[in-house]
Order: sequence, then C-alpha cells, then structure tokens
Amino acid sequence: MNYDNILREIYEEVSPLVGKGKVAQYIPALAAVPPDKFGMAICTLGGEIHSIGDAKENFSIQSVSKIYALTLAFKLLGEKLWERVGKEPSGNPFNSLVQLEYERGIPRNPLINAGSLVLADILLSELQDPKKTIIEFVRKTAHNPAINYDNAVIASEKITGHRNFALAYFMHSFNNIRNPVDDVLDVYLHHCGISMNCIELARSFLFLANHGVIPDTGEYVLSKSEAKRINALMLTCGLYDESGDFAFRVGLPGKSGVGGGIVAVLPEKLGVAVWGPGLGMYGNSLAGIKALELFTTLTGISIF
Amino acid sequence: MNYDNILREIYEEVSPLVGKGKVAQYIPALAAVPPDKFGMAICTLGGEIHSIGDAKENFSIQSVSKIYALTLAFKLLGEKLWERVGKEPSGNPFNSLVQLEYERGIPRNPLINAGSLVLADILLSELQDPKKTIIEFVRKTAHNPAINYDNAVIASEKITGHRNFALAYFMHSFNNIRNPVDDVLDVYLHHCGISMNCIELARSFLFLANHGVIPDTGEYVLSKSEAKRINALMLTCGLYDESGDFAFRVGLPGKSGVGGGIVAVLPEKLGVAVWGPGLGMYGNSLAGIKALELFTTLTGISIF
Amino acid sequence: MNYDNILREIYEEVSPLVGKGKVAQYIPALAAVPPDKFGMAICTLGGEIHSIGDAKENFSIQSVSKIYALTLAFKLLGEKLWERVGKEPSGNPFNSLVQLEYERGIPRNPLINAGSLVLADILLSELQDPKKTIIEFVRKTAHNPAINYDNAVIASEKITGHRNFALAYFMHSFNNIRNPVDDVLDVYLHHCGISMNCIELARSFLFLANHGVIPDTGEYVLSKSEAKRINALMLTCGLYDESGDFAFRVGLPGKSGVGGGIVAVLPEKLGVAVWGPGLGMYGNSLAGIKALELFTTLTGISIF
Amino acid sequence: MNYDNILREIYEEVSPLVGKGKVAQYIPALAAVPPDKFGMAICTLGGEIHSIGDAKENFSIQSVSKIYALTLAFKLLGEKLWERVGKEPSGNPFNSLVQLEYERGIPRNPLINAGSLVLADILLSELQDPKKTIIEFVRKTAHNPAINYDNAVIASEKITGHRNFALAYFMHSFNNIRNPVDDVLDVYLHHCGISMNCIELARSFLFLANHGVIPDTGEYVLSKSEAKRINALMLTCGLYDESGDFAFRVGLPGKSGVGGGIVAVLPEKLGVAVWGPGLGMYGNSLAGIKALELFTTLTGISIF
Repeated sequence: MNYDNILREIYEEVSPLVGKGKVAQYIPALAAVPPDKFGMAICTLGGEIHSIGDAKENFSIQSVSKIYALTLAFKLLGEKLWERVGKEPSGNPFNSLVQLEYERGIPRNPLINAGSLVLADILLSELQDPKKTIIEFVRKTAHNPAINYDNAVIASEKITGHRNFALAYFMHSFNNIRNPVDDVLDVYLHHCGISMNCIELARSFLFLANHGVIPDTGEYVLSKSEAKRINALMLTCGLYDESGDFAFRVGLPGKSGVGGGIVAVLPEKLGVAVWGPGLGMYGNSLAGIKALELFTTLTGISIF
Repeated sequence: MNYDNILREIYEEVSPLVGKGKVAQYIPALAAVPPDKFGMAICTLGGEIHSIGDAKENFSIQSVSKIYALTLAFKLLGEKLWERVGKEPSGNPFNSLVQLEYERGIPRNPLINAGSLVLADILLSELQDPKKTIIEFVRKTAHNPAINYDNAVIASEKITGHRNFALAYFMHSFNNIRNPVDDVLDVYLHHCGISMNCIELARSFLFLANHGVIPDTGEYVLSKSEAKRINALMLTCGLYDESGDFAFRVGLPGKSGVGGGIVAVLPEKLGVAVWGPGLGMYGNSLAGIKALELFTTLTGISIF
Repeated sequence: MNYDNILREIYEEVSPLVGKGKVAQYIPALAAVPPDKFGMAICTLGGEIHSIGDAKENFSIQSVSKIYALTLAFKLLGEKLWERVGKEPSGNPFNSLVQLEYERGIPRNPLINAGSLVLADILLSELQDPKKTIIEFVRKTAHNPAINYDNAVIASEKITGHRNFALAYFMHSFNNIRNPVDDVLDVYLHHCGISMNCIELARSFLFLANHGVIPDTGEYVLSKSEAKRINALMLTCGLYDESGDFAFRVGLPGKSGVGGGIVAVLPEKLGVAVWGPGLGMYGNSLAGIKALELFTTLTGISIF
Repeated sequence: MNYDNILREIYEEVSPLVGKGKVAQYIPALAAVPPDKFGMAICTLGGEIHSIGDAKENFSIQSVSKIYALTLAFKLLGEKLWERVGKEPSGNPFNSLVQLEYERGIPRNPLINAGSLVLADILLSELQDPKKTIIEFVRKTAHNPAINYDNAVIASEKITGHRNFALAYFMHSFNNIRNPVDDVLDVYLHHCGISMNCIELARSFLFLANHGVIPDTGEYVLSKSEAKRINALMLTCGLYDESGDFAFRVGLPGKSGVGGGIVAVLPEKLGVAVWGPGLGMYGNSLAGIKALELFTTLTGISIF
C-alpha cells in the first residue's frame, strides 16, 4: 500500500472542507486556532510513519485523551470499572444530563463527558498523582518525553466549564463522584488539555491496534481481550452522537475531540490520526471524518 | 481451527445458562417454545458447516429478519434510505416512542422496531409483492427453497402487537409511514414470522461476511461498501440497548431476535448463528450471547 | 357589574388580535373556518345572558368537550377513576407520548388527549350508548335540544388523526385502553366534533360554577366536592402547556379547544365562553386568552 | 365559623398520620427532627389567630421560603422576571435537570429548585444585601423581629446539596445564572434555612390573601394583579409534582417545604399553615396535606 500517495489524494479531496465548520467556541483558547489547518498521519505496526499537511503541529487533543484515562482506569479496576460506568452508546449529546438522571448517576459509557469524569474520579482514588501517571503514559506510548499539558487551555476551560461542573456535582449527588468536584475537574481538564501532533497521536494508539502491547518496545499495556473491549467502545461510542455514522462511513474504531483531532486504529495494522479544527454539528472535525472515510475507501480496508 | 471441538466446549460451558432467562411472553405462539433448547452453527466462506445441539430445529427469527429487510431497502433506495431512518444507536429500549417524538418521526436506526416499520413501508412502495421478494431472498441466501412464513406466529402477533401499531400510527402522523398502517404491519410481521434453523441463518448471512456476494453462487447482492455499512449498523445497533455490551464482549457485528436467535459475521471468514429461547433483561438470548462470547474468546478472533 | 359595557370594551381591545394566529391546520374541516371570527358570552347563575360578536355562531368545540366526558366518567367511577388517569399537569405538549411511556400508560391527567381517550374507553365500558349519553348531557346543560355532532368534522379527523390512534394503541399495550381502538376513537372524535356557540357553551358549564347543580333546573350533576375537583383540574391542566400562564394571567378554571373556543367559570357567579379560531403556539385561541385576561382585569374578579 | 372546633376535629382525624411518612433524610440537621410533631394555625384578615398542637414550635421552612424570594424578585423586575423563568408546572420532580436541558436553562417555574436559584441570582444582582432584605421582609410580614436564619441547617445543606450545585452550574452554562455559583447557593440556602412556626407562617402569607397589602399595617407589598399571579403560581406549581393533586383535594393556593411545613391562603379570608415532618413520596407533609384537605372539607370553603 503506498500510503504517501493515498495521503496526497486525501489531502487534495478534503481541501474544499478545510476551513469549513465551526472551531470550538466555548473554550476561548481553542477559538483562537486558525480554522484552515489540516494534518494527517499514519503509523504502522511495522514502524512506518507517513504524514501530510500540519501533521507535526501541536493541537489540543481534548476528548481523544479519554482513551488514555480509560486505559489506565481499566488496568486499575478491571471489570469492576463497569459498576460505575456503562458500555452503551448514549443516543444523546456528549454533555447531556438527561440520561444521567434517568439512570441514577451511572453514565452510559466512559467516553461521554460524564463517564470520563467518573474515570478521573477513579484515577484520583487509585493513584498517588494521576496527572503525572497520565502524562507519563502518553509520553511513553507516543515516544516523546516532551509532550505536556497546555496550561493556558486548562485555565481557560476551568473558567468556562460550567456544564462539566454541573455533571460532576450531579453524579456526586448519586455518590458516583467520590472525590471533591474541583479535584476531579482538575484531573479531567488536564488530560483534555494535553497538546500533541498527529504523528504522536497515531503512534500512541498503536498498542490498541497491537492487542494491548506497545509495538516498538514490546511493553505490555493491556491484555488482548481488554484491547478488543476498548476498541469496541471506541466503535460504538467514540464520536458522540455521530458514532453510528462514523462506523457506517469509516468502519474503524476511533475517538474524536473538540480540538478537531480524530484517531482511529485498524487492528493488527496501523493507527491513523487527523486534525482539522472546523467542527460539524455533532462536535467532530468535518474534514477529519471525510479524510478517514476516504482513507478506508481508497485503501479498501476496514474492520467490516 | 477445529470448529467442532470449539462448539463442543461452548455447548458444555453454556449449559448452566440453557433454560435460564425468560421466553418472550408477549407473543403467545412464542411463549410456548420449550426454554431448554440450544443450538449453534458455523458456516465458513470456504463452505464448511459445523453445528451442535438443536441447530437443525426451526424457530421464529423475529428481529433477525430486519437485516433482510434492510438489505433489500438499501439496494432499492441507496443513500436516499437515510433520509427516512437514522444510523445512530438509540440508547433506548427497542420499542420506545420517546426518541421518535423528539426526533420528529425519524427512527434512530433501521434495526429498532420503528426503523424496521419504515423499511416495510419502503418495500411496500417500491415492490410489487414485498412478502414474496423477502421470502425468496431468504430462501436464496440460505440455500433452502422450503423456508417459509409461520402463519400461526404472524396471526398471534397481529392480535397482540399494539405497540407496533402505535409506532406506525405515530410515524404516520409525521408522514414517515406512507402506506396504510395495516399493510405496513402485515409486511413487518411476516418477515418477523419467518421460521428457520441455525444452519440456514448462519449461511444466509454469509454475503455480509463476503463483501456483498453470496459465496457459493457468486451472486452479487450488495457492493463491498454497502456490506460494510450494514455490518457497521449491526455492530452499533444490532442488539437493542445491549449493543455496546455485545460489541464489548463478543466483538462481532450481529443481530438478535426475541425468538432467541442471534446471528453474527466475521468479515472474510464466516457466519455464526445461535439459538436459545431464554432472554435476558434487554430481550436478547442469554445463552446465545454467552456462546458467542465464548466463541470469540476460544478462537481468539474478532473484528477488533 | 355592567357586563355589556365590559364585553364592548373587550371586543374593541382584542380586535387587533382577531385574525392573528393560526387556524388549526391538521383537521381539514377546521382549516376552512374564517380566521377573523370572534364571539364572547357571559351567563350568570342568576340567569343573565350577555354576548357580543359571533357569539351565536356554531363552531367545533373540540377539547372543550373533554370536560363533559370527564364529568360523566367521574360520576360513573368516582375516585376509582384515578387508578386509570392522573391529576397532574403534564409539562408536555397535549399529544405527547413521552410521559406516557415513562409512566407506563397512565396519562398524567384527563384533559390531555391520552387522558381523554381513557375517559372514552371508560364510557364505552360503562354505558350502553356513550355517544347518545354525551350529546344528551350537553343538550341538557346547554338548554338546547338541537345541539349535535358535526359529522363532517368527525369524518375529517378520522382520516387524519394518526397521533390519536398511536396514543390509543400505545395505551392498549399497557392495558389502559380495553375496548377496540376504533371504537374508543369513535367516541372520542364524536364528542370533540360537537358543534355549539358561545352562549350555549357558557351556559352548559354553569353547573361547575354552581357546586355541581344545573342552576335553571336545580338538577344535581355532581357533588360540591366533585365540582370543585373538576374546576381544580381545569385550572391546573385545562390549557395544555399554557395552563400555568392562563392561571397566571386570567385566574379562572378554564378549558380550551383547537377550534378556538375557551370556556371558564367563576365559582358562585358565572360561566364565560369565547371563540376566536386563530391559535397561538400552544394551540389555544390567541384572541380568546386575551379576552379572558381583559375580563378578569376589567371586572377585578378572579378566584385568587 | 368556629375555627377552634374545626382545628380540634382536624387534629383528631389526622392523628393516625402523624409520625407516618419519612422525615427528609438528605439534610442531616432535618433528619433529627422528631417525626411525631404536628401543628396548625389559622390567621384571618380580621386579625383572629387560631392554633393547635405544635403551632408555636419553630421548624425549617425550606421551600416555603421560595414565595418570599419570588415576591421580592417580582417587585424588583416586574414582568421582565418571566424572561428568566417560566410559569408552567414542570411535570417532573422538584430537582430534575431533564426539562432544564430541553428548555435551554430556563426553569419551568420559580417554585422548583432551579427556578428559585434564578430568583436568588436576581436578588444578588439587584440588592445590596439580599439576605438582609429577605429576613427583614419575613420579620415584617410575620410580625416578629426575632425570626432568623438557622445556621446549623444552612451549613448542613451546603455540604450535602450537590444537586443544587449541579443545577446552578448547569444554568450558568446557559447564562441564566450570572453571579458566582457559591454566592447564589448561599442566598438560596439561607432563605431555605429560615426557622419559623405555624402562626408566623400563616400570618406572613396574609398579604397574598389581601390583594398584596399587609392587613395589620396596610403596607403595600404587591399590586392586586401581582398577588393574584403569585397565588396562581402557588396553585399550579406549589407542591412540586403533587400540585395537581393538592389543587384537586384541597383547592387552595399553597406552598410546601421538605421541613414538613405547608402554607395556603384563601383570598379575601385567611392564611393557614400546618407542620408535620413526615413526608410522602413527592416530598410534601403527609399529615399536612390531609389536614388542609379536612380544613376545606369541614369549612366548605375553597377557591373553586
């Protein structure tokens, strides 16, 4: 497969969408990102790296980071994790409180905001220094010790993130948040505020394409079965209320963020990351989804 | 892979679950099925057939049949189909009217009851004799011209299916059902009332594992891309409000019915069908889900 | 109180609203009503009748008729009625199915469509000929033996009332509709299709202003306590999702219909009816609500 | 009317209910209240005061206080108040977030928790020292300068009131809370933590029975029309999701609190307050509702 040619073809075909959509407005530090950025990177299990456009430029990974939190919480709690968070698609916007009320404080899945706040609460209870553990895990899987939190974004979200405070207090009232709400938000907003580029993102997800093992180093992260389970969650819940459409059009497990990044994996083959800050109506990168759809169409590969 | 050994191991391990759960009560003809039945069959693209237990005994396939209706409607309308039905998991029980109201009569996906009623409405508008077309399609893909509708089950559901009538009238009020409600229900209840066994079911789904082509005959049903899309819908929506859990535990696209049947496919490899009439709280076969989970665990295969 | 002067002042002040709003579109026979009609009538317990404008012109009373059905069902079942229908405001549109699903087929109150369908079901079970009983009750309370069903309107609604069929089938699935849905709809659509004028309407509601007794004849309809209860239901639930606003602005128990009629009572004093076919966003007569607000403002009377 | 005899009869008849129900558990300081308390007081516009039982014992008025906040906010903003809070019954539990989400941060009415938090936010924006203004208003209308906040209850609620924090942050995310959430909660929890007895409560509500004027002093609080509007809101929304039933059984505008108090007014006649700490399933005093139902039954008076 000539991935460089494919990336070039994608780059050309998505260009009319680049700059379209709306850059996330509710976080001031994100609203300032130029809308016409576009980057894409492919990292194979065999060690190849292919990229195009702004693939080496850092951006705020936002909800993509929920997969790191999920991986760490799943390692710590195993199947007991599912007593505190569900595994089903929500059928509702990412920050909805409705379902949470009907289901008594148990979020539908770990990839909506409420679910990730529960993950942060678990990491706080189980780890000495969760922020340190998270960033070190990201650095290790992405092979770059310089990756870090972007404190300007984090500070910006602390001021404007009323909805997340509401979710956390709400789950506190059901005893499904057990640490102080401010501490939980601090962990959550930190991992959302990690700054990375497409190559690093694609590479850091390779352990999920490799049955739980970091390919370069052979380091064990999760069992084969656990890696499968996280991929399944990404497929059913990774793109908010557009997850079904993404599975339908792209056919790969993936995770998006309002910073405009999306990462996907093809098990036993590769990781692929894309970045385009303009978002569609469900909060996912417009150009990014199109690029990944083209990727599976042009290569003829998908999990289905 | 020695599928016979694997089937035997599964058969033994699920035996404590056989007879557990509740046989569907709301359809009198189904309530009479002995709860301790269990059968399973594997059909590979290479033509192998393996089976165990009651795999040759007929049962009512119920919602499994929605995939046949979806395949035919998708062939007829192509992408225009999605103007009348969505592609997202519903996050609600299979016969809920709630979401339908908020979303103005457009069902979330074609595999919940409301969505399949829209499919039946489309088949009525597009085909001369939809019931004939459906049963002939099933006979062809299952390689058995004797497969037929079970009129006792169909008559039984007509009397008790008030909720489906409610759904159809409700969508009629949004102009998303366009034929007379009685006719739409007639088509829908007919395909739900098809009677088949596990071997036939597994075999009839092989075109979805084979990029849209019936393996034995080479007959084209759908394009590769369309087959992928149907598999994606099965993965995200195929087991009602237990779809996420099924993807998580089993990791295959599948479709269940309240008759206790579940079919799943492993693309490029095989189809697998299981039957156990005892249902869990979400309306899916208890023993069936466990058997499929064991199948992917023991074989080490899944799409993830 | 000089009611003629007051009516004249109201007539003038509401004139800018007459013709505004939308005439109910979903029932073809109603859509043809000229939007610029306006009539109002006051009938006192002492026997005075005052009216203005089109107060002697017949119109389709629609949901106003639910009070007649409620009165008859309450007389028949007494407090057992409340096992099948609630007494709380719904907080939802008049034909919503959402709450009905969460509350397992028990409508929130007898004045939303679902609740009135249950009333019709009860009348069918309890009476020989419910349609005859209803129309005779209306003729008696309104003192006009010529009042009748408008069969054109009824036929028109039978063809277009898909939502009401959906509600009835839905409650059938919870066993809260027990007669054939077609029969229930027939009773319901008949009483909605009664044709009356403002004077008759105001007069026919006087028994509710008179502690349950028809004033002219002294005939007992309900006990004082039962009349109070029906008035309370009108106040909290009589104008769909605008009931709170109506209580707030007008301060009288009342009931509206999509034909543009509204009736209200001032206990121990009078009944007042108004008709204006142009509806506001909640399905209530725009000019009608304004006229009643002016009525309580100008007279200084309300129940509060 | 011999109110002393009536109170004695009520006292006897409700005695089997006294001690029944559940004392509010979620506020530790309230959970300690002995469940077998019962008091009742009637204050007429003519200056009569009648009472029985524990009518002179202080208790935490909780949500009854929302009427004081509403009165002050309505005086300050007039009809502009209704841009920030609705007037409709909610059809949902008192602390629900569901409707708030569908209706974009505008609470259904000022008497559910969300609505009262908006009132507190308004008082904070409009007044120098809202807590001082509120307590002085209560002292004046109740004719007792010693009435005060119970700081133990307030401190207790601050620790456990996660749901109220969630509501406030949620509305902050819709810009319908504009002051810091901690400040808004501080005002809200203070007025909920006022400690009063039945006689004081009944007396302090007399201005609402007297068209807006404090009867003893003749001091103007609200216009006749405004007093009517607040009474209408109490009738439709004053007892949470039991408001319809209360209107139905009692037939008076009233307001309840989880401390077990309920106050009601009969316009142009009297105010009546009752206290019984045992709550029913909707959070209202079991004995209190029964006592008020007996009161209107025995006296034959209601607004209907």
